[in-house]
Amino acid sequence: MDEFALIRRHFTGLTAAGATGVRLGIGDDAAILVPPSGQELLMTSDTLVAGRHFPLQTAAADLGWKSLAVNLSDLAAMGAQPLWFLLALTLPASDDDRWLAGFAYGLGLLARDNGIALVGGDTTQGPLSITITAVGSAPAGMALRRDGAQAGDVVCVTGTLGDAALGLRRLAPLADNACAQTAHDLAELRARLDRPTPRLAAGLALRGLASAAIDLSDGLAGDLGHVLAASRVGARIDTDALPMSAAFARQAEPAERLALQAAGGDDYELCVCVPAARLQAAQAAVAAAGSRLTVIGELSAEPGLRWQRHGQTIDGPQHGYRHFEGAARHG
Amino acid sequence: MDEFALIRRHFTGLTAAGATGVRLGIGDDAAILVPPSGQELLMTSDTLVAGRHFPLQTAAADLGWKSLAVNLSDLAAMGAQPLWFLLALTLPASDDDRWLAGFAYGLGLLARDNGIALVGGDTTQGPLSITITAVGSAPAGMALRRDGAQAGDVVCVTGTLGDAALGLRRLAPLADNACAQTAHDLAELRARLDRPTPRLAAGLALRGLASAAIDLSDGLAGDLGHVLAASRVGARIDTDALPMSAAFARQAEPAERLALQAAGGDDYELCVCVPAARLQAAQAAVAAAGSRLTVIGELSAEPGLRWQRHGQTIDGPQHGYRHFEGAARHG
Repeated sequence: MDEFALIRRHFTGLTAAGATGVRLGIGDDAAILVPPSGQELLMTSDTLVAGRHFPLQTAAADLGWKSLAVNLSDLAAMGAQPLWFLLALTLPASDDDRWLAGFAYGLGLLARDNGIALVGGDTTQGPLSITITAVGSAPAGMALRRDGAQAGDVVCVTGTLGDAALGLRRLAPLADNACAQTAHDLAELRARLDRPTPRLAAGLALRGLASAAIDLSDGLAGDLGHVLAASRVGARIDTDALPMSAAFARQAEPAERLALQAAGGDDYELCVCVPAARLQAAQAAVAAAGSRLTVIGELSAEPGLRWQRHGQTIDGPQHGYRHFEGAARHG
Repeated sequence: MDEFALIRRHFTGLTAAGATGVRLGIGDDAAILVPPSGQELLMTSDTLVAGRHFPLQTAAADLGWKSLAVNLSDLAAMGAQPLWFLLALTLPASDDDRWLAGFAYGLGLLARDNGIALVGGDTTQGPLSITITAVGSAPAGMALRRDGAQAGDVVCVTGTLGDAALGLRRLAPLADNACAQTAHDLAELRARLDRPTPRLAAGLALRGLASAAIDLSDGLAGDLGHVLAASRVGARIDTDALPMSAAFARQAEPAERLALQAAGGDDYELCVCVPAARLQAAQAAVAAAGSRLTVIGELSAEPGLRWQRHGQTIDGPQHGYRHFEGAARHG
């Protein structure tokens, strides 16, 4: 099968005929798109490489979902409304029709949920790798950035932290005599690794309320560090306040919690700075958007990231996952 | 070095401070871009995989150039004005500073020549692969497409065909006693392989004149075939009319010419259909844009692609390079 037949068979169903602003989708040298008038565009590209950004045994449908989710999470952190995406798919072989059908299924589920249309891309042969470029929009000047935070703002996160990192650490099959609760918990943690939920509605709700935002892909320490550097502020974070899921609380050893929650990566939650006077409004807006905004600390004029436990300063991670350090993800 | 330092060191020089419509470039979750008012956007993604889309020994600067050129060629075929691009770079290791400096240099040369700004992307570790997403603009309804050609239109190409494919076929080092003319010719052919010139000015000049256009990446037979399918027409192509460079004419054996010119790939010229009444205007416009438009055949209502030599129908290639057929590029 040539690449054109491949695209037609598996992906044209994702192009959402009649999608907003799509004058011409897949099938020409470039897509022709009509940007929404009076809006700015948000554009981001993220690559997933086999064995580095996902375990080799990841199901095709999960990979389809996740490769779009990591990009939508970037749009969420900008407060963007998703519009269009392009898919660059590098595959060892094109004859694995079941794999492709699974990949397109997972991708399509998330795309339809979020009203984003596939408008183009490329398929090539080589080691498995997926690059998606996603485009969203926001009214002029309303996008959330990293560089607007001020000393005195509170630091918040959506959802819970550490679930995906724990799911990855507990990948090995369970013993036959494992209890049902453990099996259930690990399935839940694994789902957070394989099918993260980009917080798009929360990002939209935070327009005009947050002073800065970033999505948590490499772990809180590193990602919050980018906000601190861009905004030229420091932070004090209360480790006791980091939100845990029930499954995480049951399955994580106390000694491994902070590393997983602060530097584990793959959370795809939002870290948001909010002026104290707007905190209540921000929490109400995020709750209405189906998520929860938990206060975890405060920004200071003094630079650096300081961790506290029971009111005492402790040592904690100073950066998250770095792509070019060490051989293994979460090593 | 972490990926953030890597991006800062090598690529922020390419972001062209003050570039049109760039409110926020590299360094946040997404770029913030202001689309030109009243225009449509053209978006395309192309991936180059090591050993498949370029020889492994390709110089880093050539690869930087080519990875952007193949995307600009798609914009050229749509008649688009380049605006912005995103770079997703997967590298075996980030510590090869010379390689990265070379890559950024070649990329930057072509980007600056064409007024396109790097606004974002991703760097990851893995087998060498480059995906670029390029964005351009055109006035509403003026983009060139594949599906507007009509029976009776003439078929034209810019530049010369087959040079890059011959350059690839003659990659082996020359014998010490090779003549200077041969060495000069092969260097010229190799430059066409490594540093193709996207025909952006020609594409802009053809707005309102061409009925259809496509860029020649996989070879004339396959790429023209896409125009024929999209426009529901057929074509008769005169093999004697296919434009050759002087180096190609000297170095290609007569028996290998048609395969190289019609199915060799990597030309990155434009194939353009033009109503006969507008041919003279189109040729003048392309000449003014610094290129040349050569008539190579004619469209017919009868479907299919027919090759002629000295007025007789002959057998010729029916498709170009296909990414998932056979193991080797140009095998």
